[in-house]
Amino acid sequence: MERDDSRIQHQGLKDLVVSADVAASWIQDGMTLGLSGFTRAGDVKALPHALVERAKTEPFKVDVFTGASLGSDVDKIFAEAGILRKRLPFQADVTMRRKMNEGEFHFVDQHLSHTSEMLRANTLDQIDIAIIEAIAVTEDGEIIPTTSIGNSLAFAQNADEIIIEINLAQTKDLQGVHDLYAPGKQGERQPIPLTKPEDRIGTQGIPVDMSKVKGIVFTNQADSPSNIVPPDEETNMIADHLINFLKQEVEVGRLTKSLAPLQSGIGSVANAVFHGLLESDFEDLKVYSEVLQDSVFDLLDAGKVTFASGCSITLSDEKMKEVFGNFDKYKDQLILRPQEISNHPEVIRRLGLISINTALEMDIYGNVNSTHVRGTKMMNGIGGSGDFARNARLGIFVTKSIAKDGKISSIVPMVSHVDHTEHDVDVLVTEQGYADLRGLAPRQRVELIINNCAHPMYRDQLREYFQEALTRGGHTPHVLEKALSWHTQYEKEGTMQQLVAIEA
Amino acid sequence: MERDDSRIQHQGLKDLVVSADVAASWIQDGMTLGLSGFTRAGDVKALPHALVERAKTEPFKVDVFTGASLGSDVDKIFAEAGILRKRLPFQADVTMRRKMNEGEFHFVDQHLSHTSEMLRANTLDQIDIAIIEAIAVTEDGEIIPTTSIGNSLAFAQNADEIIIEINLAQTKDLQGVHDLYAPGKQGERQPIPLTKPEDRIGTQGIPVDMSKVKGIVFTNQADSPSNIVPPDEETNMIADHLINFLKQEVEVGRLTKSLAPLQSGIGSVANAVFHGLLESDFEDLKVYSEVLQDSVFDLLDAGKVTFASGCSITLSDEKMKEVFGNFDKYKDQLILRPQEISNHPEVIRRLGLISINTALEMDIYGNVNSTHVRGTKMMNGIGGSGDFARNARLGIFVTKSIAKDGKISSIVPMVSHVDHTEHDVDVLVTEQGYADLRGLAPRQRVELIINNCAHPMYRDQLREYFQEALTRGGHTPHVLEKALSWHTQYEKEGTMQQLVAIEA
Repeated sequence: MERDDSRIQHQGLKDLVVSADVAASWIQDGMTLGLSGFTRAGDVKALPHALVERAKTEPFKVDVFTGASLGSDVDKIFAEAGILRKRLPFQADVTMRRKMNEGEFHFVDQHLSHTSEMLRANTLDQIDIAIIEAIAVTEDGEIIPTTSIGNSLAFAQNADEIIIEINLAQTKDLQGVHDLYAPGKQGERQPIPLTKPEDRIGTQGIPVDMSKVKGIVFTNQADSPSNIVPPDEETNMIADHLINFLKQEVEVGRLTKSLAPLQSGIGSVANAVFHGLLESDFEDLKVYSEVLQDSVFDLLDAGKVTFASGCSITLSDEKMKEVFGNFDKYKDQLILRPQEISNHPEVIRRLGLISINTALEMDIYGNVNSTHVRGTKMMNGIGGSGDFARNARLGIFVTKSIAKDGKISSIVPMVSHVDHTEHDVDVLVTEQGYADLRGLAPRQRVELIINNCAHPMYRDQLREYFQEALTRGGHTPHVLEKALSWHTQYEKEGTMQQLVAIEA
Repeated sequence: MERDDSRIQHQGLKDLVVSADVAASWIQDGMTLGLSGFTRAGDVKALPHALVERAKTEPFKVDVFTGASLGSDVDKIFAEAGILRKRLPFQADVTMRRKMNEGEFHFVDQHLSHTSEMLRANTLDQIDIAIIEAIAVTEDGEIIPTTSIGNSLAFAQNADEIIIEINLAQTKDLQGVHDLYAPGKQGERQPIPLTKPEDRIGTQGIPVDMSKVKGIVFTNQADSPSNIVPPDEETNMIADHLINFLKQEVEVGRLTKSLAPLQSGIGSVANAVFHGLLESDFEDLKVYSEVLQDSVFDLLDAGKVTFASGCSITLSDEKMKEVFGNFDKYKDQLILRPQEISNHPEVIRRLGLISINTALEMDIYGNVNSTHVRGTKMMNGIGGSGDFARNARLGIFVTKSIAKDGKISSIVPMVSHVDHTEHDVDVLVTEQGYADLRGLAPRQRVELIINNCAHPMYRDQLREYFQEALTRGGHTPHVLEKALSWHTQYEKEGTMQQLVAIEA
C-alpha cells in the first residue's frame, strides 16, 4: 500500500495506518456506518470494496448513511453483496434502485438538509463508525475532506469511531476550499451567520476528537467522473425558455442582471440551462447549490459566474483533469460546505435563491413528482429539491413534455406521487414553453400548463379531462376514478395516448 | 359615529376621520385590498360591511388579501355579495367555501409565511388599499394593531393608500404586546435576530408613511368569538397518546421536561392536546405558534406555560372577557408577531418547534391531506401547517381515525390530495394510538400506521390493499387502479367499508 506520511500531520496518528482489509474487519454485523460522499465525489473507495470482499465469506448486514449517491461502484457492489439493511438519504445507482424497489433493503428518502439535524437530535440511529475520505489530517486534528463534504461533519461528530481514508489521488490544493460549520442544537443555536454565497463561517477541516480515530487507510483512486448526457434539441429549448423567463423577470424589475444565487439539480437539463447562461446577457452571477458540475466551471472561466458555493464538485473525466490540475485558479471563487448548510432553509430563504430542479412528471395543477415512476418505483430520491423549492425565491421545475417517444406525457391529470405540492412550485418549464404559476388559483393554472408546457399531442386529452372534472366541481376539480388512469393505461397498453380505435 | 380622538395621537390625522360609507366609496372595481385579520381576530369590521352595502346598488369586484380567516361574518358577506375576484391566503367560512368550490372566485391557498415575502418581491399584485384595524395611531406615526398582526405590516408597507379602522372595543392595554419586524429584501437581509420565543426584535407598531393614510374610520365592535368544539372522548384519547409520545421522548433523553416551543393549529383536537398538558408533568413550557387559543391562557394561568408568542389571540366569548378585561396580567408573557415571523422557516428550524396540526386524512405511507375533501373540495386551506411541519423538530399530525360514524376511514391507501409529503411527517396520532415514522422506509411505515392509528374496522381492509400492492413491488407499493377507490366508493355507496354482500 502506497502511503504518504506528510498527509498525516497530527502526531500519534501515524501508527494507526492499516490496510483496507484490516479496517473492514472492524465492521460488525448490525452496525450503522456514516460514509463520506456526495454525488460521486469524495466517497471512500478502498474500505467499501474490502468490505464487500469480506462479505463473500461472512454474512453480515449494516445500515449505510451517506451524503448522497456514491461513485466508485460502491452503491452497486453494496446492493449486489446484499449487505445492506438500511440506506439513506439518496442514491442514483441502477442496481441499487432495482434491489430497493424489490424490497431487499430499506431505503429512507430524506430531504438532504435533514439527516445531520436528525443525527444531532438523536432521532436517527447513531453512527458506530464514520468512514471519511480526506486529503490530510492537520496538526490540530482536523480532517480535511476532498471533493465533497456531504454529511461528513455530522457523521464524525456523532460517531463512536472514525476511519479516515486518505486519498493520494485527490489534490492537496483542495485544502482551504472547505468551510465546516455546524449549527448548535435546536433551541440553543444562534442564527447561521451567512448572508452571501461567499461568506466563510467555519473551519477549514472537520474538527474531531482524535481519540475516536481508529485507523487510517491510504488509497489512490480518482473520483468516478460524472456521466452527463449531452444537451439535445429539447434540453436546449428548455434552457432557452427558462432564460427567457428570467429575462422577463429582469424586465419587470423583479431581478437585476445578476439575478439571484442559482441552484441547479444534476442532470442534462440543468446542465443545459447553465450552459445557456454562458451566451446570455446576465453578469456577475453567483451559484449557491449542492453539486458544482462542469457547467459551473465553464461559467467561472467565462467570468459569468464570480463565485460558487456547493457541497461537492462532480465533474466529467476531462473537466476533472482541467480543474484539479489547476485548482489554484478557482480556489478564491469556491467554497464547499456541509449539505446541511448548502441546503439549509434558513440560508435558502435569506439569499432568495433561484432553484432549478428536474421533475419526473407534473400535473395540471402544478404538483410535481420527482421520484416515483408510476407512483411506486423509486428512481433516485428527492435529494435537495424539496429543501430548495420550498424556500427559494423561485422554485422552478423542468422536464421534457413527453418520454418514450410520446408514449408517456410528463404532464398528467394527477401526479402518481407528490414530492412538491402546488404551494411550492412557482414555474414549470418544458421544451414547449414555461408556465408561471405564482399567485394563481388551481383552475387558473390548468389552461396555462396545458398550453405552455404539455406536448401538443396530449393537449386535447388533458383539456377533455379538465372539462369532465369541471362538471364535478371543487377548488381542484378531478374525476377521481380517472385521475390515475393515464398511468394504469400505460402499464396495460404501453401508452398514455387515448386509444381511439379501441374506444370506437 | 362614536369617536375618541385620544386614539389618534399623530397630529394631522384627526381631520381624516370619515364614516365607513365614505371610506367604502374610495374602493374601486378591480382594486387589490389588504385586510387585517387572522383567524377571527383583529379584522376590520365597519368598512367591509359598508362595502357590501354599496355592492347592493353597484357592481364591482376586488381581490382581497388577508392574514388568514376573518370574523365578523366578513368572509361570508363578501362571498354572498359576489364582490370577490381573488381571495388569499386562507379562509374558514362555510359560505365562502361553497362559493369557491363552485368556482365563483379564485382562491389562492398559500403557506401563511409566503404572502408577505411575495408582496415584498413584487410577485403578487401590489396592494391598492390596506385596511387595518388599530387601537391607536401613535404620535410617531405607528399604527398599533389589535388582537392580530397577520400580514398587516406587509400590506401597509406595500399599499398605495391606507385606511385605519380604530376599534374602541379593543382594549388599549394591547399596546406594547406587538413586535413588528420585517426582513429586508431577499439577498440583502440579515439573519432574523430571534433565538427564543420571548425575544423582542422590532417596533411596537406598524411604522408607515403617514401621507399614505387616506382615512380613519371608528368602530366599536368586539372580535367574533372562536367557536371551539369541546373535547370529546376521542379528542381526549388523541391528547393522551400524544402526551405519552412526548413523555417517551423525555425518557429517552431527546427532550427535557420543558419540551420545546409548542405550535398548535386551531380546532378541538389541538385544544384538547393543550388542555392535556395542564395535567401533565411537563413544566416551564413555551409556545411559539400562530393562534393563541383559550387553552394557552389556561396554561399561562396554571403556570405551565411561561411565555407565548403568536400572531393572533382568538378566544371564546367567555375567555375574551377574562383575558382582555385583565390584560396587564398577561402582557409580560405574550408577544404578537407578523405571520411572516411566527411562521418563518428560519425561526421554526432554529427553535426546533414541536408542531401539532390536524389532518383530514393520512395514508399508509404517511402522506397527509389537510385541505381537500376527496381530493377536490377545499375545506379551509393549508394555513401554517406546511410552514411548521417542514421545518419543525417534530411534525405531528392528528385526526380521528374515522368520520361519519365509520363510513369514512381517515387512514386510506393513498391520500386524495397531498399537502404534506412523507418527508415532512414525523408522527401520526389518532384516538387509536401514535405512529412514530422517523427514520422509517415506506414499507416499514405501513404496519405501524395500520396497527397504531387506523380504526380496527378498517385494519384488515388496509392490510389487504397493502398485500396486493406488495405483489406489484416498488419502493412505495400501490395498486394504482385501486389507490383512490376508497374515495370513489364512498361517493357512490356512501361508505369506504368493503361491501361484502355485493361482492359475494
